[in-house]
Amino acid sequence: MDYERLLAERSRRVEASGIRSIFELAKSLADPIDLSIGQPDFDVPEPIKTAAQDAIAAGRNGYTLTQGIPELRDRLLAQVRRRFPGQQREVLVTSGTSGGLFLAMLALVDPGDEVITTDPYFVAYPNHVALTGGRLVLVDTYPDFRLDPEKVAAAITARTKAVVLSTPANPTGVALDAEAARGLVEVTQRRGVIVISDEIYRDFFYEGKAVSPAQYGDNVLVIEGFGKTYGMTGWRLGWAHGPARLIQEMAKLQQFTYVCAPSMVQWAGLTALDTDMSAIREAYRRKRDLMVEGLRDCYELVVPHGAFYLFPKVPGGDATAFVTEAIRQKLLLIPGKVFSRRDTHFRLSYAAPDEVLLRGIEVLRRLADRGR
Amino acid sequence: MDYERLLAERSRRVEASGIRSIFELAKSLADPIDLSIGQPDFDVPEPIKTAAQDAIAAGRNGYTLTQGIPELRDRLLAQVRRRFPGQQREVLVTSGTSGGLFLAMLALVDPGDEVITTDPYFVAYPNHVALTGGRLVLVDTYPDFRLDPEKVAAAITARTKAVVLSTPANPTGVALDAEAARGLVEVTQRRGVIVISDEIYRDFFYEGKAVSPAQYGDNVLVIEGFGKTYGMTGWRLGWAHGPARLIQEMAKLQQFTYVCAPSMVQWAGLTALDTDMSAIREAYRRKRDLMVEGLRDCYELVVPHGAFYLFPKVPGGDATAFVTEAIRQKLLLIPGKVFSRRDTHFRLSYAAPDEVLLRGIEVLRRLADRGR
Repeated sequence: MDYERLLAERSRRVEASGIRSIFELAKSLADPIDLSIGQPDFDVPEPIKTAAQDAIAAGRNGYTLTQGIPELRDRLLAQVRRRFPGQQREVLVTSGTSGGLFLAMLALVDPGDEVITTDPYFVAYPNHVALTGGRLVLVDTYPDFRLDPEKVAAAITARTKAVVLSTPANPTGVALDAEAARGLVEVTQRRGVIVISDEIYRDFFYEGKAVSPAQYGDNVLVIEGFGKTYGMTGWRLGWAHGPARLIQEMAKLQQFTYVCAPSMVQWAGLTALDTDMSAIREAYRRKRDLMVEGLRDCYELVVPHGAFYLFPKVPGGDATAFVTEAIRQKLLLIPGKVFSRRDTHFRLSYAAPDEVLLRGIEVLRRLADRGR
Repeated sequence: MDYERLLAERSRRVEASGIRSIFELAKSLADPIDLSIGQPDFDVPEPIKTAAQDAIAAGRNGYTLTQGIPELRDRLLAQVRRRFPGQQREVLVTSGTSGGLFLAMLALVDPGDEVITTDPYFVAYPNHVALTGGRLVLVDTYPDFRLDPEKVAAAITARTKAVVLSTPANPTGVALDAEAARGLVEVTQRRGVIVISDEIYRDFFYEGKAVSPAQYGDNVLVIEGFGKTYGMTGWRLGWAHGPARLIQEMAKLQQFTYVCAPSMVQWAGLTALDTDMSAIREAYRRKRDLMVEGLRDCYELVVPHGAFYLFPKVPGGDATAFVTEAIRQKLLLIPGKVFSRRDTHFRLSYAAPDEVLLRGIEVLRRLADRGR
């Protein structure tokens, strides 16, 4: 059997995540300084665990409505109505944020259609676009990682369906400010394009209140998650809110692909919404400050507004060489090329115990000295 | 905003499940006789529930490897090596069987490629093919629902990538016998085509040991599930085994779409593999016999080998009219057109308490008399 002949062109266009190969490497190292991980370092709060366990005990183990259990959907919808008064947004419970993002791409992008994203970008976006046969169009945001709506306007063509971005962003931690968000909505509305705003890190924002482009117009699909916020990335729970027509279409496609988010996890989601995570946010803000203070005099870096990443520039300019040397010293980082057409920066996650962060800073300061 | 313009052609080709509208209707009826449900009527066995609860308590709540936790993958691989000696099959843990099926389609089918299935078919298959931009080719199996490999051979073209079917089948309950399975593998191997064998109902087989086409050759991707077998359809756990090259490709795509099956559920899957479900199988076999005995003198029906469905012929020949009349009498069924280009049969699920089955038989006998 010639399996190569049978594989779809679509599948060839998807690249295995460069992050995964770092994870594999990490497993072979004894006592690594692991700053490569894209998930929080705390466990699910007890009340949320108990809610999931109780749902299992109570027999909430069968299929749910594909849109999500009404109890959770109603709570989320009430929150959306409060946050975006006057808009007719609808809500869909999804299997993680990846589920929501991929359903949106399936619902919007035909082969040859264009999707705009920032460079650097979250690694899944190019692959979601590849899976639909669409064409990725990049808007450069180096060196400060702030979005310029005029650059987006210049990138829009008759084939553009959507602009997708994360705010606060993975890998840079930079968030949209009000001006950029308003500008983005204006240029996309004018050209009849949807904004897909991936706000998975919304609860990890350290500068007051995070801005969503959805505050400035209704042509915005917002993707939100429970996984990072509550330490339950393995539970696969996310949600989306946006224009009713698009949400309906995503629900129709979810029926045949994801079917429904895990049943017991949806019930636990209700408890999660009542759980105060501000202490965690404060702890992560402090970790951010610790890293920034520890590195700012020897690395060129943009102070992140949120998420739990830093994206500093590599002194010599060759990120893969730099990360290879770091790994030789047991420090796990991700080279910029995983998130970008450039390979000049590296991603560092500070979702780790302070003791690990301090060891990381020590190695990074040594590496910076050597690069000089 | 003109959302209609923005929606993908792909999405338009997907039809909302006709089953869902029956579910919606069911909710408006008081005390319906519900024989429309596609999931078992028992709850998850206690040891499996406990295993999921323990995994949550133990903090197994983060991302797992996309291929599945090694502990579960190793158990499944050992089972596969035992069942299919001499083959180099690989294993992938998936988010339910729908997850495995959809990943296989994404990995194989480009726009314009052809996928063959039986008519009647499981409702997700045409939609999975539509989502990839592929073309569905049907092989008729009326009136006895047995697959004729020669018909498959005649349907294969240079664009054919796969033959997908379920055995035992939804909606007919008919399973492949050894001769049909061997014939199917022979004709597909000769033409370089993959068989996707959806064996989600393998543990609901009432005639000895179920046959898999994978016994006759290695060009077979087998999709298996935990959901129906252990009453945990809402937990989203399935698995796939097949040619290494295809499984690798599916794992790569899973990383960006489903990410991983729910973490705690994967741990519970280990306990599920040690749980004896033969009493349930016996109970369902008895339910099948009850239904067949209750209906065979007044309906033309094929005695199913497995699953928990009957697919009888409608006396008058118009299934939608028949089901509409049944619903008027509080009996919920699914019209054949949901699973077929014809609308001459109806699907009845006997995954229900005996008392409900007896009430269903009573209404169905009355309807048959009227049809005469």
